[in-house]
Amino acid sequence: MNGTAPDRSRERHGVDRIAGLRDRLGIAYGGDYNPEQWPQEVWDEDVRLMKEAGVCLVSVGIFSWASVEPRPGRYDFGWLDQVMDRLADGGVAACLATMTASPPPWLTARHPEILTVRADGRTISPGGRQHYCPSSPVYREHAVRLAEQVAARYAGHPALAIWHVGNEYGNVVPCHCEASAQAFRRWLEDRYGSVEGLNDAWSTSFWSQRYGSFSEVLPPRSPAPFPNPAHDLDYARFTSDELLACYLAEKAVLQDITPDVPVTTNFPPSLRPVDLWTWAPHVDAVAYDAYPDPADTGAAAKAAFTYDVMRSLRGGQPWLLMEQAPGAVNWRPRNAAKPPGVMRLWSWQAVAHGADAVMFFQWRQSRGGAEKFHSAMVPHAGPSSRIFSEVRELGRELAAARALAGARAPGADVAVVLDWPSWWALEGDAHPSSHLRFLDAAWACHRPLYDAGVACDVVAPDADLAGYRLVVVPNLYLASADAGGNLERYVEGGGTLVMSFFSGIVDPCDRVHLGGYPAPFRRALGLRVEEFAPPAAGEPVALSEGSGSVWAEEVVPEGAETIVSFTGGALAGRPAVTRHRFGRGTAWYLATRPDPATMRRLFDRIRREAGVEPVLPGLPEGVQARARRTADGLRHIVLNHGPAEAAVELPAPMRDELSGAGPLTTLRLAAGDVALLRPA
Amino acid sequence: MNGTAPDRSRERHGVDRIAGLRDRLGIAYGGDYNPEQWPQEVWDEDVRLMKEAGVCLVSVGIFSWASVEPRPGRYDFGWLDQVMDRLADGGVAACLATMTASPPPWLTARHPEILTVRADGRTISPGGRQHYCPSSPVYREHAVRLAEQVAARYAGHPALAIWHVGNEYGNVVPCHCEASAQAFRRWLEDRYGSVEGLNDAWSTSFWSQRYGSFSEVLPPRSPAPFPNPAHDLDYARFTSDELLACYLAEKAVLQDITPDVPVTTNFPPSLRPVDLWTWAPHVDAVAYDAYPDPADTGAAAKAAFTYDVMRSLRGGQPWLLMEQAPGAVNWRPRNAAKPPGVMRLWSWQAVAHGADAVMFFQWRQSRGGAEKFHSAMVPHAGPSSRIFSEVRELGRELAAARALAGARAPGADVAVVLDWPSWWALEGDAHPSSHLRFLDAAWACHRPLYDAGVACDVVAPDADLAGYRLVVVPNLYLASADAGGNLERYVEGGGTLVMSFFSGIVDPCDRVHLGGYPAPFRRALGLRVEEFAPPAAGEPVALSEGSGSVWAEEVVPEGAETIVSFTGGALAGRPAVTRHRFGRGTAWYLATRPDPATMRRLFDRIRREAGVEPVLPGLPEGVQARARRTADGLRHIVLNHGPAEAAVELPAPMRDELSGAGPLTTLRLAAGDVALLRPA
Amino acid sequence: MNGTAPDRSRERHGVDRIAGLRDRLGIAYGGDYNPEQWPQEVWDEDVRLMKEAGVCLVSVGIFSWASVEPRPGRYDFGWLDQVMDRLADGGVAACLATMTASPPPWLTARHPEILTVRADGRTISPGGRQHYCPSSPVYREHAVRLAEQVAARYAGHPALAIWHVGNEYGNVVPCHCEASAQAFRRWLEDRYGSVEGLNDAWSTSFWSQRYGSFSEVLPPRSPAPFPNPAHDLDYARFTSDELLACYLAEKAVLQDITPDVPVTTNFPPSLRPVDLWTWAPHVDAVAYDAYPDPADTGAAAKAAFTYDVMRSLRGGQPWLLMEQAPGAVNWRPRNAAKPPGVMRLWSWQAVAHGADAVMFFQWRQSRGGAEKFHSAMVPHAGPSSRIFSEVRELGRELAAARALAGARAPGADVAVVLDWPSWWALEGDAHPSSHLRFLDAAWACHRPLYDAGVACDVVAPDADLAGYRLVVVPNLYLASADAGGNLERYVEGGGTLVMSFFSGIVDPCDRVHLGGYPAPFRRALGLRVEEFAPPAAGEPVALSEGSGSVWAEEVVPEGAETIVSFTGGALAGRPAVTRHRFGRGTAWYLATRPDPATMRRLFDRIRREAGVEPVLPGLPEGVQARARRTADGLRHIVLNHGPAEAAVELPAPMRDELSGAGPLTTLRLAAGDVALLRPA
Repeated sequence: MNGTAPDRSRERHGVDRIAGLRDRLGIAYGGDYNPEQWPQEVWDEDVRLMKEAGVCLVSVGIFSWASVEPRPGRYDFGWLDQVMDRLADGGVAACLATMTASPPPWLTARHPEILTVRADGRTISPGGRQHYCPSSPVYREHAVRLAEQVAARYAGHPALAIWHVGNEYGNVVPCHCEASAQAFRRWLEDRYGSVEGLNDAWSTSFWSQRYGSFSEVLPPRSPAPFPNPAHDLDYARFTSDELLACYLAEKAVLQDITPDVPVTTNFPPSLRPVDLWTWAPHVDAVAYDAYPDPADTGAAAKAAFTYDVMRSLRGGQPWLLMEQAPGAVNWRPRNAAKPPGVMRLWSWQAVAHGADAVMFFQWRQSRGGAEKFHSAMVPHAGPSSRIFSEVRELGRELAAARALAGARAPGADVAVVLDWPSWWALEGDAHPSSHLRFLDAAWACHRPLYDAGVACDVVAPDADLAGYRLVVVPNLYLASADAGGNLERYVEGGGTLVMSFFSGIVDPCDRVHLGGYPAPFRRALGLRVEEFAPPAAGEPVALSEGSGSVWAEEVVPEGAETIVSFTGGALAGRPAVTRHRFGRGTAWYLATRPDPATMRRLFDRIRREAGVEPVLPGLPEGVQARARRTADGLRHIVLNHGPAEAAVELPAPMRDELSGAGPLTTLRLAAGDVALLRPA
Repeated sequence: MNGTAPDRSRERHGVDRIAGLRDRLGIAYGGDYNPEQWPQEVWDEDVRLMKEAGVCLVSVGIFSWASVEPRPGRYDFGWLDQVMDRLADGGVAACLATMTASPPPWLTARHPEILTVRADGRTISPGGRQHYCPSSPVYREHAVRLAEQVAARYAGHPALAIWHVGNEYGNVVPCHCEASAQAFRRWLEDRYGSVEGLNDAWSTSFWSQRYGSFSEVLPPRSPAPFPNPAHDLDYARFTSDELLACYLAEKAVLQDITPDVPVTTNFPPSLRPVDLWTWAPHVDAVAYDAYPDPADTGAAAKAAFTYDVMRSLRGGQPWLLMEQAPGAVNWRPRNAAKPPGVMRLWSWQAVAHGADAVMFFQWRQSRGGAEKFHSAMVPHAGPSSRIFSEVRELGRELAAARALAGARAPGADVAVVLDWPSWWALEGDAHPSSHLRFLDAAWACHRPLYDAGVACDVVAPDADLAGYRLVVVPNLYLASADAGGNLERYVEGGGTLVMSFFSGIVDPCDRVHLGGYPAPFRRALGLRVEEFAPPAAGEPVALSEGSGSVWAEEVVPEGAETIVSFTGGALAGRPAVTRHRFGRGTAWYLATRPDPATMRRLFDRIRREAGVEPVLPGLPEGVQARARRTADGLRHIVLNHGPAEAAVELPAPMRDELSGAGPLTTLRLAAGDVALLRPA
Repeated sequence: MNGTAPDRSRERHGVDRIAGLRDRLGIAYGGDYNPEQWPQEVWDEDVRLMKEAGVCLVSVGIFSWASVEPRPGRYDFGWLDQVMDRLADGGVAACLATMTASPPPWLTARHPEILTVRADGRTISPGGRQHYCPSSPVYREHAVRLAEQVAARYAGHPALAIWHVGNEYGNVVPCHCEASAQAFRRWLEDRYGSVEGLNDAWSTSFWSQRYGSFSEVLPPRSPAPFPNPAHDLDYARFTSDELLACYLAEKAVLQDITPDVPVTTNFPPSLRPVDLWTWAPHVDAVAYDAYPDPADTGAAAKAAFTYDVMRSLRGGQPWLLMEQAPGAVNWRPRNAAKPPGVMRLWSWQAVAHGADAVMFFQWRQSRGGAEKFHSAMVPHAGPSSRIFSEVRELGRELAAARALAGARAPGADVAVVLDWPSWWALEGDAHPSSHLRFLDAAWACHRPLYDAGVACDVVAPDADLAGYRLVVVPNLYLASADAGGNLERYVEGGGTLVMSFFSGIVDPCDRVHLGGYPAPFRRALGLRVEEFAPPAAGEPVALSEGSGSVWAEEVVPEGAETIVSFTGGALAGRPAVTRHRFGRGTAWYLATRPDPATMRRLFDRIRREAGVEPVLPGLPEGVQARARRTADGLRHIVLNHGPAEAAVELPAPMRDELSGAGPLTTLRLAAGDVALLRPA
């Protein structure tokens, strides 16, 4: 429908422009480097300490716009030339930024119209960062011009290894200004062709919202409750596409000037803002900024899901952990420190999930500004510090693990379905319950697999599922008829499906699939849902096995057998968890969210019935293992996230490349310790 | 004082234009009907299912503005002609809307100045509904023109039974735009005559707020705390009056064109926003949208109070339950489903309290838009569903109860006083406690009467109280000297009064009645209140009997006897509940809010002393009974709101017209069941 | 650096213009008097009741602008002449306001540009008070003109005793309008000289914030998170200075016209908004509005700290309790009443801490307006009321205590360090924990001293500390190198220092002192802090003695000995409380906030080791004592804040001037009672 919309194919990943980087650096190690915050005398110490720490890649210039273009059109690259030369001399490669993430004061003073306008009409003032409207022609023109200057200046520089476009695009606050309104109208016209198409897609016969022309359409600027949900949903799609257009405009310039240098941008910690299925084809490698909370006991499990997303975005291609914190961050209400060893453990977890880079924000802790309490590789206390010691030690380990670079994971048996428009629509207004969050649903399903040591991919609803033994569909509220057919065929052909409640409710325009929920999946699931009956927040739902929360609904079986029942209230005796043999496969349905222990039992049963095995058998509680297949055979990375030493019985004798121990048949891992195993 | 202010008389209820509707429909049954959301093929099924369900009245076109006037001044009534004809053919009457509730995109695009401006300056953007300024001349002109077109088109149409003006006016967000400012100044000039009058009324000598002219007055647009309370109070009055003026302008057009067709508008679920004493004289029948929360165990008791308000607004005239939900709604954080039978039970509760219509939002559940998860008579699952079965069954029952239509309740012995300006002023800023809510106070007093099976009317403070044995005054913060005299004369003449704390504090301009609280009632109550000492939110107040909450104060008896005392803190030993013989009557005073059990004991004692009896004697806990007097004698509607079967000993043998059982001397009602009793 | 910035010297307190007031009034007694709210007949009763109550000073006209200048440039002083004459005749002195706190409607209607604009762009509408931009030239011009008129009118009037400029300046909401932006740029240019200086001070190399010229600088108008902290900090400094400039402009006019009349302004209840070290040199006496919450069991202890601030602001000079409430206030969510006797007890507490005036808001309780539920000396109930009885009794007592007027406290042995820029910066965004509040830290340290009966001064970080045995530094986040040196020299010279965590972190531009926290204090403390590890809000921190909360960090001793250790988590075994002998002194450090009982034990030990003794030995729990040195010798004021009678063993026989009892060796004080002791 949309001629200009980005290509959503996950298959067209283009040339492997990233191979050169891999060959040059192995597992890349380093961090954001902001030398403009420091006097020149510090730069020499920087390069010396980088070498000491094994740093081979630094991201330079992400917020340097005002430093390299201090006045409109007047460039000052002198200082950066020195920095790039020093890096090259020191053998450190540069992930060089286009520097366009934060427009300088001179630009916003001359063009206040580029500032982001929030939904309620308040303008975001300069003074923070990323305060630009992605649809602003003025912003785009200035940004592209800068990217061009930077590319021209450093094309061929020996330090230049990869381009870093913008910064965490998804963190840009959605803009609702006049330029956005105009761009949104063009986007809609592209998507729907005619105003009749728009009216149909947005169900505007409701509440007298029928448009006479595209010119009457506005961004969703705080209407009286409740807003048109299709309007909100399309604005989320549009915002993602507009940010991508900013990225692509800069990328085009870079590729013109330096066709062989790979290009990427760092995806922000929150997965939600932009549709990464549409973005991933346009980066040469997925780059991600990960900030698990050390105070969250479930942090490693949640990170595992996120890293599975990153590895899956480009079909298993190794990705770059572009940022993480060596210790505490500074932007939570309470910023917990990482206890000794956790930085190493979590870095290796990313590698276990397919990362080819372990990088930090940032190299040297800022003295001033809003992020001065964000930890860094070189802390305020200087290199004589616990953090820098751990940084140095980790650099040594990763350099020794060079063979892992480029190694892919063996094929996973399990896929978890993720779709951004469904996520956005699920969390909209005026639903049966306002407590539904996609990530909660995804974590609830991913966690029992993580605990069982099972490897998972993450896929789009219309992906080819043929290779998977088990497909898990958490809360896929929005589903096209095509997605319905895809999943139905998967089950029919012999697959095992687990779907959680409130899935398949609406089409891509947020219009209900009529005739009994969840219409596109009813045949495969063998049931019909007639009414929703969500409990209050935190209220338990009585079940015949364990207890549920968050949701309950009236399920009418149409072939499915009941595995767990509701046992209280108006739903007592009705199905809560069902199983349905369909074609050659099996489809499970969860009409509530069982408690974690019940989920663990259920998923253990389901995956066993589906023939899904863990990466390593018999892993103790809290120990995670993942595999990567190197040119020289399989490697297992084993991580002890638990609080005590654990013993892992190995299926065959192995050696630990980190400790040098082996051959081992029992691996003993201290709390927080890591092993890199190869066959003995 | 105000020449143009609406007439507040509750007596002038005009001709009974509603009689024809009653004769035609009996207890009207149906719901909102929005055919423009569906293709024509569905329309035929609609009428067929309506007949199957016993539907005889549907509200058509409430949000059809954009559909009937798709461009300025260009009308398209073709589709609606077809709908109206189909309804007429199917024997379904139309409650036809003037369609002015939600201005279409073309209007707000051409005239953004009609959009509501919130107190803090943020404009409500189109995209929801009811986003208009009621004082906007542009909005009013367009709305009246549309009403005129609709009336001219359907005058004399056989389906047309009653006009439905606008929609839930009270839900329109108060506007603070320039047009509002100008209208407010005119309203003030009308009310106060001179700026000296305004200054006096608003106590502007405080904080240097004295106005030099009306032109200096603004709407209360988020001043620094704390705002002038008289300013806020008058803005609430003004907002109510401006919305009423919108209604009246459309009504005038309708009455010109179709003088015999009754006119009404549906009052919104929240009673608070507009002063219904001023509105009620201008509707031919009170129409109300009721949405009790199925998750609230006190929902039926609260609904009983609200329905008493509705029945009382026009002196006992039967009212129309214009909207309710067949199941869940979609606008709460958590939307509980109605368990089987609750829709029927609550529908009959409305009839028991005097409703002559049982209608729903809406006929067919929307496929798209903001309310698609609001339940409907025909749900997404279609007519083969529990909900539609119950809808059909209820239609059958109500059709058989035709004789109830028009029947009034026998005179009640108890009146509860309700006054909108007092409510608004009570909940303003900068009071001794910010935790006071009028509805909490009203419910606290109404509940023990409801539990005892006692019928209540609701009256204005200046109503004729002569017919009542007991008058209950919850938290009447604002009271005119006239109201004081009215209540004093009532007691003096032999009545029993119960007044709860923080009553009679200020005059209609929110100025304190000096000389000891509550000055206008001190003589009747026989006491003086010297200081307020509210506890913290949720903190109990120790009493000699039970415990209190929300409030405490220092009462100095001046003739009153102490029935319950405070027993803790600085007030220990002082009166918490008092009784005073005054003239031939008795006045009780509550200086705190006793717990429900204590309230029940107190009110049982008070009403017995006052000679007030329940509708039926000896009702078990949870069973409610109300009576209506038909042409053919008294009918009792008995409702079991409890969780188990209940047995009611009847004072005389009766028959149950719903079950056909009888003659009975003991009525056995299952949980959730209803009986319609007539003398055997 | 800043040529126009106010003089911060605490020493230059100018001539003692206040002596005349003291001689005329003794301990001044009275309240705010707003006769314009009442008809003339009330004025006569007012003066009669004032005399009856011993009132000798009233604050007149604080919000009278609209009454004395009802139209632009047209003055009506007639009514005020009458009031002033009546006061003079009645022997009541006037603290006469310049009346500029609340611009009248005619001014804001003509000049809406003077209205305060909030950080998010919303304008504060008229209707409350203090809705002006302090940088507005229009506001300043009108305010100064009014002050001039008032001064000219009442120069030499016999009632005039002292000028009251504006009202609670610190309560004016910070403004972000264009006039503010221009003034801010001038202020910055003054402070930093060049844009390079600004860029350096604000660390603008971070996030591309480098300014090309001052004209690009804006107020911090809600930037995207997180804002530049140095920008925010300077805006707080600027706001304080701009408000002070308003005060000084009016003061200059008053001093021109009435050079002998003292001038002051009342500091608002919240200490935080303006830097009182910069303000204090410009008032002839510190005046303070105190509103402890009667519902807060710690109210008296917190008030003690605040009163210590007030007494210390001008080096021990007696201060004026300009406002307090006789009973409840009206602006809290729940406004507790003062039980009988509390008004007297808390009034005497202020006197014990050096107050020379006991005044109230307000004389007569308003009938209308936003503060009508604020208690007053003459309540709504009139003079026949508990409150007025207590007012009269207190007036009698204070008149008898005339000798205390002007008496200073004996020198304190303890000083607590307070610095406003540090306070503001501490509570900014993006810190290791967002739960840090300066006052919590100050109270935590002051409370054990208060409980022990020890008198404290409050000092700036660069004050001369030579006279103190113990200096307490709570959470001095921001510290200049000078302050570091000052405190280091203090310890070296033999002093005892107690410093709590997260002190000495940044310089006055909010830039980290590098090289290990807290760099400026490391030598004196004998330690280095490497990382912060704050617990969650409310989470306890395990200690070897008691438990901590709010904070934890990794302390590396460099000479300090560990007194208390952490015993849980990653910090187990590391120091939580340390002591370091440095030079001839001792420095203690608290790396968490120990619970109150542990703090009490620690501080008792520390002060004993430092040789600090309580004001009176052996005070029972809940009994407070403070001393003032009159011309006729020392007086002790002893206050029983506890709930039961207490017996105080006196070190020598004394007489109680209030009860007349004595000579006593044991003083028995009822709950809430006060004694004024002199040597027998």
